[in-house]
Amino acid sequence: MKQVFNFNAGPAALPKEVLQKAQVELLNYQESGLSVMELSHRSMLYENIQNHATERLRKLMNIPADYDILYMQGGASLQFSAVPMNFLTEGKTANYCLSGSWSEKALKEAKKIGRTHIASSSKEENYSHIPEHLELSENPAYLHITSNNTIFGTQWKTTPELDAEVPLIADMSSDILSRTIPVEKYSLIYAGAQKNLGPSGVTVVIVKKELLKRCPDHLPTMLNYQTFAKNGSLYNTPPTFSIYMLSLVLDWVADQGGVAQIEAMNAEKAELIYHVIDSSDSFYKGPAQPGSRSNMNVTFTLPTDELTKKFLYEASEHGFIGLSGHRMIGGCRASIYNAVPLAHCERLAQFMTDFRTNFM
Amino acid sequence: MKQVFNFNAGPAALPKEVLQKAQVELLNYQESGLSVMELSHRSMLYENIQNHATERLRKLMNIPADYDILYMQGGASLQFSAVPMNFLTEGKTANYCLSGSWSEKALKEAKKIGRTHIASSSKEENYSHIPEHLELSENPAYLHITSNNTIFGTQWKTTPELDAEVPLIADMSSDILSRTIPVEKYSLIYAGAQKNLGPSGVTVVIVKKELLKRCPDHLPTMLNYQTFAKNGSLYNTPPTFSIYMLSLVLDWVADQGGVAQIEAMNAEKAELIYHVIDSSDSFYKGPAQPGSRSNMNVTFTLPTDELTKKFLYEASEHGFIGLSGHRMIGGCRASIYNAVPLAHCERLAQFMTDFRTNFM
Repeated sequence: MKQVFNFNAGPAALPKEVLQKAQVELLNYQESGLSVMELSHRSMLYENIQNHATERLRKLMNIPADYDILYMQGGASLQFSAVPMNFLTEGKTANYCLSGSWSEKALKEAKKIGRTHIASSSKEENYSHIPEHLELSENPAYLHITSNNTIFGTQWKTTPELDAEVPLIADMSSDILSRTIPVEKYSLIYAGAQKNLGPSGVTVVIVKKELLKRCPDHLPTMLNYQTFAKNGSLYNTPPTFSIYMLSLVLDWVADQGGVAQIEAMNAEKAELIYHVIDSSDSFYKGPAQPGSRSNMNVTFTLPTDELTKKFLYEASEHGFIGLSGHRMIGGCRASIYNAVPLAHCERLAQFMTDFRTNFM
Repeated sequence: MKQVFNFNAGPAALPKEVLQKAQVELLNYQESGLSVMELSHRSMLYENIQNHATERLRKLMNIPADYDILYMQGGASLQFSAVPMNFLTEGKTANYCLSGSWSEKALKEAKKIGRTHIASSSKEENYSHIPEHLELSENPAYLHITSNNTIFGTQWKTTPELDAEVPLIADMSSDILSRTIPVEKYSLIYAGAQKNLGPSGVTVVIVKKELLKRCPDHLPTMLNYQTFAKNGSLYNTPPTFSIYMLSLVLDWVADQGGVAQIEAMNAEKAELIYHVIDSSDSFYKGPAQPGSRSNMNVTFTLPTDELTKKFLYEASEHGFIGLSGHRMIGGCRASIYNAVPLAHCERLAQFMTDFRTNFM
């Protein structure tokens, strides 16, 4: 089998052990004679899978008992609408921190629903850092942040401190489970699975039960968080195989020692590549300011477009996959989510060093 | 491996050949060194999968060129809202044919959006047949039907004839690809995949391009059909593995000879079981009226609740899975979607005959 190093931004690398387990039991889950994909979502075998995922996630992330864990569909993009539809009520203002394209998209959807306010933004500095100086509006419905910005390669390093009555809502699609998070400071966390949690097709929502009382009755049933909370995410057929894969990934994280261990490993992986950038005499440049650098998506540029193309071509020849920057900003990007092994980051760091040396 | 006969109502049986192919290439898709789940949705390898599915479906269902094929998430339940949000405009009335619980749910969501009208209903007869005597409202936005009713076991045998300006919209979640359909008579067809198309997690929408002009701009982006049509269903990350499985299932249908051959086989499978019911001297009773009987979900009852329990227990001991009726109405149900082999239906027919004989 071809040896490749997968730095895709999402859908991204999955742990090899997880894929191997899924392969072994693909036609015969727990001696049932059936594939997980063929199980009824109302069967005990399937419900055990989903409950296992929920318990694992609760333990790994230390999610308090007064939070529900929901499995939805449609990715973060549908959450951009679901959040204001559920919580941006008459007379209130939805507050957004703009830290990149994804938070802009979230804001755009909220504007269709009601009044909004930009509480902070680093747009003027080309999103090269996480915005500071939070200024909330009157009557804030909530404050929304994007915890990690895949395109610009920045990441919140702390949790914004808010008055207790202002719900903090975060899109953690690209760094959930990559580091310890004080869940109790958030009212709602959502994440598309396809970076750190599993394959695409399932969206995890962690929500404080108290907040659910605000969901209005008139919403489309499938956009009301209450529907999922009341029915254990089984109001209709969930994406069963994606949730099964999620449960295997969560087992894998536990096997690694848990989130703290994963966090330390992620820091080591990121440091390897940032070190090459910082010691390259500006051959490689990281557009993200050091204090805001993401441990999930390392973005960098080369001196010219020609060199960038050459770098990406040669990298691809060496088995590195997914190193092109987002089509919106170009350059290069290494996405080093949980499942990307340290050894692959070492290979990339070495390749970057060699490429520069050869150029000199 | 345990031999089981899967009659689940959905998620349901998948063709064994499809699961075997998925298993073989689970860690190494087309010698890429990657799982399909690890491919970027912007990679050529993935786009080829999705395009292949689209071309296959277009050919198998004979979908005209002026129709788009979209891949969405959230199942039929989210379509219940998306349809009226996109097409139930001011001054118009959404028309619904009530043929069972799913059409009731579709109507309920439409009522949240605008004015509705029940164009026909068989509710008074306990949904034992497909409703007749269509009476549309003034200014109909569209007419919505549920082509097959999984819970009651009935199925439309013809396509309602409407004036050209009234869009016909159908939920075909449970019988798409099971028989030849005159797609050109429909303006929009939607289907959750988990019965005849693949695993749960992807919703196929077939929509006349002309109709898309009516989608209002102010909708949440992820609920606007235009978003999916304009971006080739790649506005955000689609459920890539589910679409890959769909593409394999479509290849399998082609290998069987196409939809006409599948339809003939489905009729033969259904006839086997209906014949046992009809020749059982009312030991088994089919609540669906003969002219409305579904070839996908065969529902039947036994003389007493005790016998039903005994039947289900013994069936389960013999490896039959998923024969309980829907929790709403009880009784028994054999779901015999495309992937359920004729041999399994023969086994079930024989078991039903033996069970009755033993009881006599």
